[in-house]
This record gives sequence, structure tokens and C-alpha cells, in this order.
Amino acid sequence: MKKLINDPDNVADELFEGFVLLNSDLVKQIGDVNAAARKDAPIEGKVGIVIGGGSGHEPMFLEMIGPGMADVSINGDIFAAPPSKAILEATKAADSGNGVLYIYGNYAGDNMNFDMASDLAEMEDINTETVRVWDDVASADLENIDERRGIAGDLFVIKIAGAAADTGADLKKVKKVVEKARDNTRSIGVSLTSATIPSTGKPTFEIAEEEMEIGMGLHGEPGVKRTKLKTAKETSELMASKVLEDLPLKEKDEVLVLVNGLGSTTRMELLIMYKELHNILKDKNIKIYDAEVGNYCTTQEMAGCSFTLVKLDDELKELYNKRADSPGYKFFSKE
Amino acid sequence: MKKLINDPDNVADELFEGFVLLNSDLVKQIGDVNAAARKDAPIEGKVGIVIGGGSGHEPMFLEMIGPGMADVSINGDIFAAPPSKAILEATKAADSGNGVLYIYGNYAGDNMNFDMASDLAEMEDINTETVRVWDDVASADLENIDERRGIAGDLFVIKIAGAAADTGADLKKVKKVVEKARDNTRSIGVSLTSATIPSTGKPTFEIAEEEMEIGMGLHGEPGVKRTKLKTAKETSELMASKVLEDLPLKEKDEVLVLVNGLGSTTRMELLIMYKELHNILKDKNIKIYDAEVGNYCTTQEMAGCSFTLVKLDDELKELYNKRADSPGYKFFSKE
Repeated sequence: MKKLINDPDNVADELFEGFVLLNSDLVKQIGDVNAAARKDAPIEGKVGIVIGGGSGHEPMFLEMIGPGMADVSINGDIFAAPPSKAILEATKAADSGNGVLYIYGNYAGDNMNFDMASDLAEMEDINTETVRVWDDVASADLENIDERRGIAGDLFVIKIAGAAADTGADLKKVKKVVEKARDNTRSIGVSLTSATIPSTGKPTFEIAEEEMEIGMGLHGEPGVKRTKLKTAKETSELMASKVLEDLPLKEKDEVLVLVNGLGSTTRMELLIMYKELHNILKDKNIKIYDAEVGNYCTTQEMAGCSFTLVKLDDELKELYNKRADSPGYKFFSKE
Repeated sequence: MKKLINDPDNVADELFEGFVLLNSDLVKQIGDVNAAARKDAPIEGKVGIVIGGGSGHEPMFLEMIGPGMADVSINGDIFAAPPSKAILEATKAADSGNGVLYIYGNYAGDNMNFDMASDLAEMEDINTETVRVWDDVASADLENIDERRGIAGDLFVIKIAGAAADTGADLKKVKKVVEKARDNTRSIGVSLTSATIPSTGKPTFEIAEEEMEIGMGLHGEPGVKRTKLKTAKETSELMASKVLEDLPLKEKDEVLVLVNGLGSTTRMELLIMYKELHNILKDKNIKIYDAEVGNYCTTQEMAGCSFTLVKLDDELKELYNKRADSPGYKFFSKE
């Protein structure tokens, strides 16, 4: 796979550098690690929100910082968890004395390094709490929900967290509502092609020209079903059924919807997939409160997309309605 | 190329339907053609802005409607100009009695159909004026600038037009400043892979695994140079030199910058390309007033990107600073 890069072993640093240059009026680099903070961090009177994970999923997590979103993002090498000492730097940059909430995808490497950073932060008298996002219904059964992977559902969880922190609530309260957002979030992906890690130059898995895989993970982790390429309508029905059998929704419930592109899928396809999902939900009398279509959590040049649904209640809706202004996601207030 | 679609001959209609469903609180369909208008169009007291062209370049032109952007977009089949009668419908939907400005890329089919629509509008007593965007420096010499193609520079031209119309200026004045924006805009693209039109399922051109083409058009039109794949730094230098020898810039001049992804190029690569362009401009003491990196004008799943520079003056800067809120491009006011 051809890529517009320089040194294949240095892409995470170079893309980070590009991001900081692009947003020099909004963000600042922390120390000499790939941590970026909104320029006014740490912010007095509110819990700090630190997000992070491997690079290669841009704009997630890197670019989801700013008013109404996270305070600091800490970014590892391509598809690799950030080191715990770098997470500690990010934690210090986010803490104004009110503690820090970590939000990240539920992967072994991230779990270990963020937990170690939490211990290191404690030694420096910084309180931290953690919400791991595990929205991917294809990655484990519901009874083992805490073994599921985090995918594009991160977006709405981070948005709710940013708004919750802005209310001035304390760390325990912010954590509680962010856990509720996470627990109400379900996603599923479908992949049509593989992705290439620049340093190896090789696809992370093989998939035939006429095949697709339902539920494949962001790094090529196995999904639930490999099948012949289906139409957008058939694919949407399969994906929606997996989410809806997992997330208890009744008629008139309100949801947020995200149709997330994984990298090389055209916006044409994403809009067609949205149409299909919209019609499925309409038929079930489930109300779409708001929806996004775009590349928010990518996996290099993988072709495919994911659906995310978030079941709303009044508290989540009020937080969702707040303005968010990050380089990776902009939302004009609904208030 | 595998795509998540239903009927390959119906993708333009289906993606349009998805767009209208996704943005039902912001936009409305006009008649039974693929024209979408901001919900409050036509708007009293201002010139209407109508944009359009072939589908398959999403979010351009379809999604660039809303406050601070265009009033109506009219969208043809994949890579095909919209029919003149459909453009007439779009024109009527945009006109509040102050006339309508057409903005579109300079392609033979679009030119013909928009000109015919203009004649039809005149018969219905609607004044129209036209600004064709011809920002692609690779497509003709500077002395034949009006033979150049329009590519991603559309974005900033439309943004300036939306802001200019909002001042309440008359049609001639709006046209004049939009022409200035267009005349100060230059772009160049680079392609690494081809794109597939769904109805044929075949790539629009062939390009070898180790090759890239500088200046290739959005539909596979020939560029200025086919070469071995270069690094991001080398590619940026080549691209920037082509733009800078065409657009007269001196030290301390201020520019808008767009690094536009063509479809399947990762955000990682776009951020690295931005870094390179940033450093080139910094070395020349040219000031980046603001910059965007993203997929704004795509060409299906083509890999590659384009650079756009807009030379600013006080008038253009003031208009640029206004808020823009369209599904395809959001800009929080700089005021």
C-alpha cells in the first residue's frame, strides 16, 4: 500500500507534529511526549479528562480535545498503547486539583499502561478514575461485556464526559454519568479490506475480493462472521440486528447514531448506509435524536464502517446538547 | 473495488436521500431533483448562492449548504453535471428577489448546463451571475487560467461567498468579491491510486504500484508529471513549488491553507503532508492565517491529496472570519 509518508517508523511522531502545527492556536504539546492539551489546560474548577490510545485511528483520540471535549490526549505509536510515564505527563497537564478521568478503549495494553499511570499519579497526589469504553458487541458476549473492545463509540462517550466535567461536578459524579453513557453505547463494524501498518508495509490480515467480515476489530481482530459481500441494505440489517439484540430499546426510545467510516470508505457509501439504518430504526419506531456520519475512528486505509447507537435519557441528552469544539469533532450547541 | 452500496446505477439518488434524512432539521429537498436547500431558503434580503456539480465528491458540493455557506446545492449523477432544468429548480429555491450567484467547478458539462439554467431563469425574471472555480494549476497555463479545472479550492470560495451574501450586498458586489477569492486561490493535487465509478465497477485509469501522478484531475484527467512514489517531504515540495510559481506571494503575505484528502488517504498522511507544507511556507515567511486538513472534495476511493492556498486581503479575511455551519464544513467564528 502506497502512503504519503517519510520514515515509516516515525509516522506517529510526524502526524502528531502536524496536528500541533495545524492547531497551534487551540492546542499545545505537553513535555516531549505525544500528548496534546487544549491550550487553557489545566482548567480551574473542573475534573480533567484524559483520553488516549494507539495512533493510526485519527482523528481519534488525538484530535478530540477542546472546549466540551477532553482536556488532553495521549497518543502511542501506531496501534500501540501510550507508555505509562507519558500518560502520567498527560495526567499532570489535565489536573487542576479536581482529579482526572481516564477514558480509553478496552485493550490489554491500554488497560495496563493507564492503570500504571494511575498508580504513578496517586504517588503525586493526583486522584484518577477510569472509564474503559467497550462498545463493540462483536468482541464478546453481553455477560462478558467488560471483555469487549472499544471502537467508535468513544466519540459520544468523550463528548458526554467533556460536558459533564464542564458542569463542575466532582470526579465521582463525572465518572458515574460517563459510565452511564458507556453502558448505553453499542457498536458493530464491518470490514471490506485490510489495513497496513506503515512500519511493516503489510496488511494486518487477508480478505478476499468478494468477502466482507462483520464485527472485525480496529486492528484486524476476528469478527463474528465472514461472508460474501452484501448490499448496503443487507449489511445494515445484519449490523443493526446485532446491536439491537444487545441494547434494550423500546418504541419511542431516543438514540444517538454514528455511522463511522474506517478509512477508505467513501462518504457516498456512508450516507447510503445511514439511509438504511435510519429506515430500520424508523420501522421500529425508535427515534433518532441526532446522528453523525463521518470518519471519526479510523483504522488506516481499511474499507468498512461501524454503526454506534447510544440510548439517551434526559441527563445524557442535556449533556449531549452542549457545544463541543475540537479539531476532530465540532458540534454547534443544540440549546 | 468493493463498495457498500445497493444498486450501482442508483448511488447518486441514494446518497442524496441519506444526506436529507441525516440533516432533516437543517435541510430540505427541492422538488424531485437532487437539490438540497437550507431549510430557511430563500432568505429575504440576500443574494442566493447555488452550488453544484457531479456527485461522487462528497461532501462537495452536496453538503456545503447552511448558514454562512451556500443556500442550495444541486447534484448530478456520479461525475456528471446536473441537468439544466434541475439547476433551474435550485435557482428558484434560492432566489428571494435579490438574484442568485452560481458557483461551480469549471468543467464543460457544468458550464453548459448552468449557462442554460441561467437563460431559463432569465425567462422567469430571476437574475443570475456565475463564478466558475478554476483553481487547479496543473490543468492549464496561467495565461489560459479560464481553461483550468475546479478542485478543492471550491471550499474557501463558497465560504467567502456565503459570508459576502450575508452582508446584504447586491448580486454584482457579491460576484465581485467571490471572483477576487477565486482569483486568489490556487490548488494542485497528487494521486496514488485510481477511483472506481460504481456503475462501471472499473478504475477510471491505471497507475502502477510504485507510481504517483502530480496534478491529476478529480476524474482522472491527466496531470503534469507521473513519477516514482516520493516521500511526503519531496511530494509537498513539488506540489508547493507548482502553486507558488503561479500565485504571487511575498514575505508576510497571509494565506488560507487546505490539505484536502481525495478519499482513501489516511488522516495520518494528511497531517504529515500539512506539516511539510507548513514548514515550506514558514521558510518563505508566508503566514498561515488559518488551515484546514480533511476530506472536503473527494473523488471516490482515490488515494492522494491536494494543496490549496488562498491569498488573503483585509476584505477576504473579514469574510472568512464569519461563522459557517454546514453539514460538510463547520467553522466557529473567529470574531
